[in-house]
Formats: sequence, C-alpha cells, structure tokens
Amino acid sequence: MDLTALGLLDALKAFREGRATVMEYVEACCRKVAERDAQVRAWEWFDPQRALAEAEERSGGGILSDLPLFGIPVGVKDIINTRGIPTRMGSPIYANHVPPSSAWVVRRLEALGGLVMGKTVTTEFAYRHPGKTRNPWNPAHTPGGSSSGSAAAVAAGFVPVAIGTQTLGSVIRPAAFCGVVGYKPTFGAISRHGIHPFAPTLDTVGVFARSVGDAAWFAACLMGHDARDEATAVRGALHALRVPLATLETPPRIAVVKTPKWPLATEAQQANFAEAVATLKDAGATVREVPLPRAFDAAWENVMVITSRDAVKSFALIESRHGVRLSPPLLELLERGRGVTPEEYARARTRRDEYRRWLDNLFDGCDAIATIPAPGEAPEGLANTGDATFNSLWTQTALPAVTIPSGRGPRGLPLGLQLVGRYREDERALQVAAWCEKVLKKGDSPLF
Amino acid sequence: MDLTALGLLDALKAFREGRATVMEYVEACCRKVAERDAQVRAWEWFDPQRALAEAEERSGGGILSDLPLFGIPVGVKDIINTRGIPTRMGSPIYANHVPPSSAWVVRRLEALGGLVMGKTVTTEFAYRHPGKTRNPWNPAHTPGGSSSGSAAAVAAGFVPVAIGTQTLGSVIRPAAFCGVVGYKPTFGAISRHGIHPFAPTLDTVGVFARSVGDAAWFAACLMGHDARDEATAVRGALHALRVPLATLETPPRIAVVKTPKWPLATEAQQANFAEAVATLKDAGATVREVPLPRAFDAAWENVMVITSRDAVKSFALIESRHGVRLSPPLLELLERGRGVTPEEYARARTRRDEYRRWLDNLFDGCDAIATIPAPGEAPEGLANTGDATFNSLWTQTALPAVTIPSGRGPRGLPLGLQLVGRYREDERALQVAAWCEKVLKKGDSPLF
Repeated sequence: MDLTALGLLDALKAFREGRATVMEYVEACCRKVAERDAQVRAWEWFDPQRALAEAEERSGGGILSDLPLFGIPVGVKDIINTRGIPTRMGSPIYANHVPPSSAWVVRRLEALGGLVMGKTVTTEFAYRHPGKTRNPWNPAHTPGGSSSGSAAAVAAGFVPVAIGTQTLGSVIRPAAFCGVVGYKPTFGAISRHGIHPFAPTLDTVGVFARSVGDAAWFAACLMGHDARDEATAVRGALHALRVPLATLETPPRIAVVKTPKWPLATEAQQANFAEAVATLKDAGATVREVPLPRAFDAAWENVMVITSRDAVKSFALIESRHGVRLSPPLLELLERGRGVTPEEYARARTRRDEYRRWLDNLFDGCDAIATIPAPGEAPEGLANTGDATFNSLWTQTALPAVTIPSGRGPRGLPLGLQLVGRYREDERALQVAAWCEKVLKKGDSPLF
Repeated sequence: MDLTALGLLDALKAFREGRATVMEYVEACCRKVAERDAQVRAWEWFDPQRALAEAEERSGGGILSDLPLFGIPVGVKDIINTRGIPTRMGSPIYANHVPPSSAWVVRRLEALGGLVMGKTVTTEFAYRHPGKTRNPWNPAHTPGGSSSGSAAAVAAGFVPVAIGTQTLGSVIRPAAFCGVVGYKPTFGAISRHGIHPFAPTLDTVGVFARSVGDAAWFAACLMGHDARDEATAVRGALHALRVPLATLETPPRIAVVKTPKWPLATEAQQANFAEAVATLKDAGATVREVPLPRAFDAAWENVMVITSRDAVKSFALIESRHGVRLSPPLLELLERGRGVTPEEYARARTRRDEYRRWLDNLFDGCDAIATIPAPGEAPEGLANTGDATFNSLWTQTALPAVTIPSGRGPRGLPLGLQLVGRYREDERALQVAAWCEKVLKKGDSPLF
C-alpha cells in the first residue's frame, strides 16, 4: 500500500492502531517527493534527513503520541518563519534569510506533535510574481498562487496537509486548481505572528488537505488566541471548531451567489457549477439564487484600495532599502497604494463593513453560500497564477470559505466548488462543505 | 467541595466528565491563594486576573480540551523565563526583568493546554540565599530551597503541579519539607532552554505534585528533545515515560543505601525511614542494604568541585557587572570555583563517571534505591533552606529521583522517602515510587 494515500485523520488512525509508524509514513512521503518533485517543484526547501530525524524522535510512543497532530508532516508556505530553516518569501531579498524563531503556527503545530516537512514555494511575498511550482495534474499549467507549493504538495501526496495564507485568493484558488480542499477560516482565527505581512487587515492563515474533515481538524489545531496578533483576540474563537466535524442532521440551505463577475468564468466552470448545484439539490439541499445588490459592484475596486494601502505600510522598509529587487507587479501595487488618500481608505473600510452586514443578514436564511472558487481550470503556463476575482469578496468580508473538488474541466484539470459561511461560524461552513463533498464525491482522481 | 483538593489527573477527569470547569478550578485555586498566601508567600508574581483570563480562554471546549494539560494551572519557578511576566531570579539584579520570550518548558506546558498560574519564589539564582516563602505546615519553618515557592504552592493547594530545578537538592528537599511528591528526572530529560543556568552539567528540571501519578504525567508532558539544550539529545528520551503509569506487577526489589552521611540525619528521620522500609518489606518488597564503597566518600566534595567551577562560567558576566549585588554564599562559591584547576575539574568529572558506573551495576540487582530525601524535618527559621547532603550524589550521577511523603516528625512537619532509579529508567523509578506511595499512604494530611 502507498501510505501517502492516507490523509491526516487516516494516518493518525493508522498510527494508533499500529498499522503504520510515523517513520514509515514520513518515509513514504519522502519517497513520493523523490519520485515526483523534479516535475512538481513544490518545495523551496526540503531536507529528507531532517524530516526523518523528526519522525525518528516520534518513534517512542508515550503520552505525546496522543497529540492531535502526532507524526503528521506539514508543508509550510515560505513566507512563514521557521527557526533554523531558510524562509525566503519568494524574494531574492530574503535569499539568505534563516529566521531565529518560528512563527506561532509553526510552534503550535510542532507542540501538537506535527513536524515541518519543508517550506513550500510561494509567489514573491505572496503577491503575484510566480515561483517555480507546476500543477501536479499537468506541469504545463500553473498550480495557482500565492500558496502554490502548499496546494501542489498536498495534491501530489508529499504531505497530507499544508499551511498557506490568503489576502485575496491565495488559498482557495490554488486549492481549486490543484484539486484539493482549501479552507480559509474567518479572519483572525489563526495567528499571523511570524508570517510576512501583506495587508494585515485581510491576511488570513488557511490550510490545504485532501478532505474537509482533515482540513477542519488541522485548522482547529492551529486556532487560538495569540497576544502578538490582535486579530486573534476574538472572544471564543479559540475553540470555535469542534472536530471531528459532526455530520449535518438535515441537508443544508444554500444560497447561490454568482456575483457580478460571473461572465468571467469559463463555460466549463459555469456548467460544472450548475451541475454540482443540481446534484446537491437532488440530494436534498434547499437552493435559491441570491443576486447581490448593486452596491457590491464596487467591491472589487474596494478591496484593492485596502490591499494596496495596507501593502504600502507592510513594505515601506523593504521598498526603501531594496526597492529595485521587487517585481514590477508589486511595485505597481505599492505605487497605487501611495495614491490612496486617508479619506479613500476610510471610505473603503466603511464600505467593507456594509458588505459584511448585508451578507450577515443573508445568513439568517441560509447555512452557506455556494459559488465558484476560480474562473475555471488552472491557466496554461507558469507566468500567471490565475486571478482572485472569485475570492476577494469573501476575504474582504472576513468570512470562512472552503473549496472542494467538483470534477474536471475540458483539459482534464480540476474544478472546484466554493462554500462560504457566516462570520465566525466556521463549523457550520465546514459541515456544509463536508456534506457537499460526500454528495459530489466522484472517486476519479488520477492522483489518488 | 473544595476543588483545590483535586490533583492534576483528578482535575482533568473532572473537566472531561463535566463535574468541574477549568474556570471553576482556577477560581478555586485563586481563592486558596487569597486565603493563604499572606502566610505562605509562595509567589514572587501572581495576578489572578491573568490566571482567570487564561482559564476563560479555555472555556469553549473543542479539540484542544483533549490536550494532556488542558486547563491545568502551573506554578513556575522564578528562574524560568516567562514572556511578558517578570522573572526576577530571586536577585535584585533582575528586579525589573521581563523576558521577551518564554523558556521551552513554559512554551511546552502552554502548548499542551496548561497555564502559568504565577511565578514561584526561588532562592537567589537557585542557590542558597533564601526568599520569603514559609513552610505551609508551619510558617516558622523553611519550605526548603531553592524551589521554595513551587513546593509550598503545591502543598498549600494553590496549584496541583509546579516546576522547579535541581542542581544539588533543590527539588527533592523542598518537596520533602513540604510533604509533597518531588520528581527530578534523569539529567537531560527536560530542556533547560530559557532557564537561568547554575551548573549546566548538573542542572535538571523537576516537578512537584501531590501524587506520583500526577508528577509522572506532568513530567512526561514536559520531556522532549530541544535543539537548544544539547543535554536533551539523549536518544529515545522524548517518549521514555509512558503515562498513566502502569502498576508494578510484582513488589519491587529495593536497595537501601544510607551513604556515609547517615549520621547527619535526625533520629526521627532515621526511625521513620526504618519504619517505612519495614512496611515496604511487609508488603512484599525485597529489601537489602547496600553499603557504598569507600571511593564514594569523596563524592560530596567532588560535586562541589563541579558545581563551583560550572558556576564561575554561568555567572562570569553577572559577577563582572553586578558582583556587589550577589549574596555572600554565592560569592564564596564563585571564589571557590575560581580556585579549581582544569585538572581538578577533569578529575572530578572522571570520578563522577566512576560513581555512575558503580551505581549502574547496582541496578542489575534492584529496581530502585531507597534512601532519605533530607536530614529530617524542615529546619526552623527562614535563613537556611536546609542542606542537600542526601540529594547531591543522585544529581551528580544523573539518576532519576522521587520523594514521597512518609509521615511526620516530632514537630509535626513532613518527612519523606526518596527512591532513586537507574539512569534513564525513570518509568521504573516512578512505578516503584507509586507502589511505595500506596503502601505507605497514611491519609492523615492536615493540609489535604
């Protein structure tokens, strides 16, 4: 048996029941990397000897083997600090950077028994300039970004789970392009301490996995209050997610929200979505389509006002010292941000609050929004990691979002279905996603 | 019911079964502090609001509530760094010191769900100059040192468990004086990163609890490899301790080792020891007395050669900058250490290895050594925290040691029985201690 087929929860079960050891599992993952990473190129940094030494340390049994991530190898996006391990941010400016301490999420995952398998390729500072990673389904295509390597590593079987971040669409989009589950929690659920900031009022840590259950379990392990990230100070957020996820008792009520950007989706994506929604309806879901009010037309412009202005602050020091080594798209964004007046910024934040309120009311009548995670299959070529049109509204409004595989497009690449939940009701959003996952399950993955 | 009577494992069980919440438990501990700490003075730093806020954060349930220290308040010796919380080392030199990051043990206990209840009083840099803490059994007597506040806090019901350190006898002795269980693991079992060093070839992190089972559980949670403390690099030590402890299947084989210092013990301590040994024998233990060879006569001098020389290095910077603010006993020790030649130091380390080897052979024929943890009851007055004569040999030889209450002396203060195990066979040493604890249990504690 190929142990890399085991997802997070399956692996934990196998360890507990003595059907596999941590060492065997990590070895299998390392073998898979050796076989396939020359093509996929998911890793910015990977050292099998370190991974195996970490596995070896977990070979003795004892109380720690009951920890909820015991023996689980994790891919960590390379804008997340790892003590003693290079963290290059996808930028030549950080080519020689080895952080003296780890990000909060890394310390947490290690404390709960997990191990850092390696650092996954990110676009430059998690913006647009692409890295070297290819789509595991077809190396001629992008894996999406910015969490390119994390999505690809989970899809390729290098790790059962990985960490990414989303400012606009950097978790949901690559997850959809790579045919895995991506989960971006409610803003503030997971600490960003020790992660390179981009737009701190939007930046959200998210996870990749091969099932909704695995994603929920992994994310639940990473959630919690951290005094060094004030966004995590939301009361009760620490234990908001009960895992393993309970099954929904009744089929969900789903609002289909196409957004004004729908024409940008490919026909294949639109058709796949319609088919998925019909299948959910057949399985008992209540579905109604909800148009967004015209005020939302400005949402896509609005989030860029916030992003660009936030980014100016995040990159002020880097730009002043190393401006010439930043990519043209990032420099353009910063230029744009400098043009945003304080009044415009304040107005954008007010508008964001209005979007949030309107959507919050919508959730009085439904359990989740269903929409698409990306315009279609992953584009050909590596120059462009795809666009965040179908993600930024949900990031802007701080809502939990999950994408699950929903089939494949005409080029044989994955398509996805995105479920968006109410603010801080991540558990319900994930339960709905798990319900949909079960209904849509096609079992035709050529990768697993 | 007074919830503070619940030890660590009892509290975890009560949380799981819904008989108490973390908040109720921490509140009860805070009340106990409010009632009794004016007399006991166990805390160097204590803030009930912070403790209650930490408890509040653990009120939501979820996956983290399965963590092995979930909701457990812990006393932390004040030579152990705690981020954002004063860490004064028992010295005026550190009166205003607030560390920017926590020691490894603190991060570990927090990661496993525990919370820092407060910082416990230590003697100056864990050497001899006493702090303000009094013995909870009789405030006219010392609680012992150097982990004075940790021992007293556990005895007084302020916390179910606490962390201390032992270079000579700083865990076992105060535990015995305060009538609680003290456990000093094999050297290197728990990381010292972020703990003020004294003699790094001897310094060992240990724990206080009110039962052997609690001590084992707590210590097992804190053990593990830490790259920043090379002493922890012992292979396999990470999971050496399986908890909850299994019961011994057959009564243990015990070697009584009185050491050449036996005449320094009080008659009451000697009599209590003889009685305890007779009781163990009646219960089925195989007991034989083993005299130490004459070569051991030099062991007490030997450990001071190592300690004083190690301390010179540890305090070089502090002494050069703040020498006048160090206490006379510490300055004397440093003076002594400066007189140790490299040859003497090398010889002392060779001799230590010889002691280790001789004792290791002894364990071929027994499961544990039984001896006394201190010369007798806690001395009167606070000026002197007692002496480490009956501890330093076991620290020097890196062996696991456990003290359990064995009754009370003529002044009504606790006496103890010390069990010493084979190098890295902490589990067996603890199993023997648990067996003895059950046999000796007298149930007459006026404190619990």
